[in-house]
Amino acid sequence: MADLYKTYPTGRVAIREVGLRDGLQLTKSWPSTAQKVRWIDQEYAAGIRHFEVGSFLPANKVPRFADVRDVIAAVDRHGDAHGVALALNQRGATDALATSVGEITVVVSASQAHNEANVRRTQEQSLAEIANVVQLRDQAGKDTIINAGIAMAFGCSLSGDVPEDDVMRMVDRCFEAGVDMVGLADTVGYAGPRQIASLCARMEKRLGNLPYVIHLHDTRGMGIANASAALDAGCRVLDASLAGLGGCPFAPGATGNVVLEDLIYLVETKGFDTGVDIEKIIEMRSILAEAMPEEMLNGALAKAGPPKTLEWRARVA
Amino acid sequence: MADLYKTYPTGRVAIREVGLRDGLQLTKSWPSTAQKVRWIDQEYAAGIRHFEVGSFLPANKVPRFADVRDVIAAVDRHGDAHGVALALNQRGATDALATSVGEITVVVSASQAHNEANVRRTQEQSLAEIANVVQLRDQAGKDTIINAGIAMAFGCSLSGDVPEDDVMRMVDRCFEAGVDMVGLADTVGYAGPRQIASLCARMEKRLGNLPYVIHLHDTRGMGIANASAALDAGCRVLDASLAGLGGCPFAPGATGNVVLEDLIYLVETKGFDTGVDIEKIIEMRSILAEAMPEEMLNGALAKAGPPKTLEWRARVA
Repeated sequence: MADLYKTYPTGRVAIREVGLRDGLQLTKSWPSTAQKVRWIDQEYAAGIRHFEVGSFLPANKVPRFADVRDVIAAVDRHGDAHGVALALNQRGATDALATSVGEITVVVSASQAHNEANVRRTQEQSLAEIANVVQLRDQAGKDTIINAGIAMAFGCSLSGDVPEDDVMRMVDRCFEAGVDMVGLADTVGYAGPRQIASLCARMEKRLGNLPYVIHLHDTRGMGIANASAALDAGCRVLDASLAGLGGCPFAPGATGNVVLEDLIYLVETKGFDTGVDIEKIIEMRSILAEAMPEEMLNGALAKAGPPKTLEWRARVA
Repeated sequence: MADLYKTYPTGRVAIREVGLRDGLQLTKSWPSTAQKVRWIDQEYAAGIRHFEVGSFLPANKVPRFADVRDVIAAVDRHGDAHGVALALNQRGATDALATSVGEITVVVSASQAHNEANVRRTQEQSLAEIANVVQLRDQAGKDTIINAGIAMAFGCSLSGDVPEDDVMRMVDRCFEAGVDMVGLADTVGYAGPRQIASLCARMEKRLGNLPYVIHLHDTRGMGIANASAALDAGCRVLDASLAGLGGCPFAPGATGNVVLEDLIYLVETKGFDTGVDIEKIIEMRSILAEAMPEEMLNGALAKAGPPKTLEWRARVA
């Protein structure tokens, strides 16, 4: 049985860097393995502890994640860093379970239409696949966290509104399938803070102390406001990417994941100690500029810098 | 006596376009008068009713606002549109009072250091000037709203933290000087949503039902999150600018005012009816691209568009 609380300690805010997976999903180019390792090393040194490392997909079809095992090894070199890999099916999960990665994300959509369009399976078929992944984990005798990411949890670009009851039913079904943890994803950036607050309140009622992920995209500029609402409602695990790397398959040119630098600033201003050196994170954007010069680097804090006249810690204390 | 509730009806959210003044403060070029008029006409047609029109300054020194009277006339052509002009001293206020502009903003800083650096006057001298402006208004027998904008209300780039008590004391002093209304400005974008919520709660306790402005900059990416917190705390008058036009004199290259388009999306997702056609607002960005091609157009919603599969009104209802 996976020990969630070791990876996501109660009361601490975990900010997960998803740039190395979700951030690279749609880019024209991608960093070399050496650049990915430097990204992890420098971000670890700045205080980040949770890294999405890549996706277990056929290397010949998706070369950008072909080095996922090397990226996992880079995370492993840091004793208390945690790696998260995406696996879209049993084959991917089998490969992931053969590594030391601490967490495997499996995906099901809260919208039947999107689930079928995205993976050509019904939600029921995806849930059966998830149950199989859990069984594989158990048979392997491993304590890898199995985390079900529920896509389109705040609205769907194909089917429109997604009722909260549907989302909560899917949460139940994922736990019935045996997962340790779930995440709610605003895949296309439709959510506003009121919606986030409402669904997070239901999550807290359903899950109590159990950690869950809110995965936000800044597609319509609500990323930081939604993260703020999620934190207010008790969520303590948030995804983000350096310079907001990533996009939206349904809106070409749109902004991507929540900007890591801005999220850290938000979390600190709300009185949480992230343990992250924000100046170091801002400097790290040069890695992306070097590795993917054609990518837009999003985020406001990096342009303005943290408040200059103030001792950062002192200000937010 | 000015009738605040006619201009800012209780229970309605007023989103004020400040791009024509605050947005143009630091730009390399600026729109022609004809372009400013088109900006107002189109934004009025899209549903915006409150416009900052410019600043009453010596036309030969600040040519970008030399046409402020023409801009006021453009607002006047729309029966229920409201114009707001900045006046930094009695001379400016005298000129403003000679026009039909509905509201004059006077400024004092919550930080003594900033007040002295900004206008070479002590806070006491600025307050005396404000009292004189109110007297000028009364002597003219006009019902022009006098609104005191309190700069650096959430932290100062010169003196650091600004205690809430100092801000609330300044609010009291402004009302003692006779103003009808006050606004709190996060001039350099230091605020986070917790700080906004805390100060807005004190404003509500102090002011009851009386409207007040929260003027936010997105300098550090917190603009929309801060607006969300302000709305939650009962504030109903928010400033923003088309494409986030504007900058920060203390952080060259930084993002500017809160992005109007994204703010409208936020307000709608929170269940308020803005009465604004967001598609029309997004189209309007072309005016800026034409008038000031070198300016960065900020904002996420314009890149992604509103949720496509959904009836906009239906979705947020």
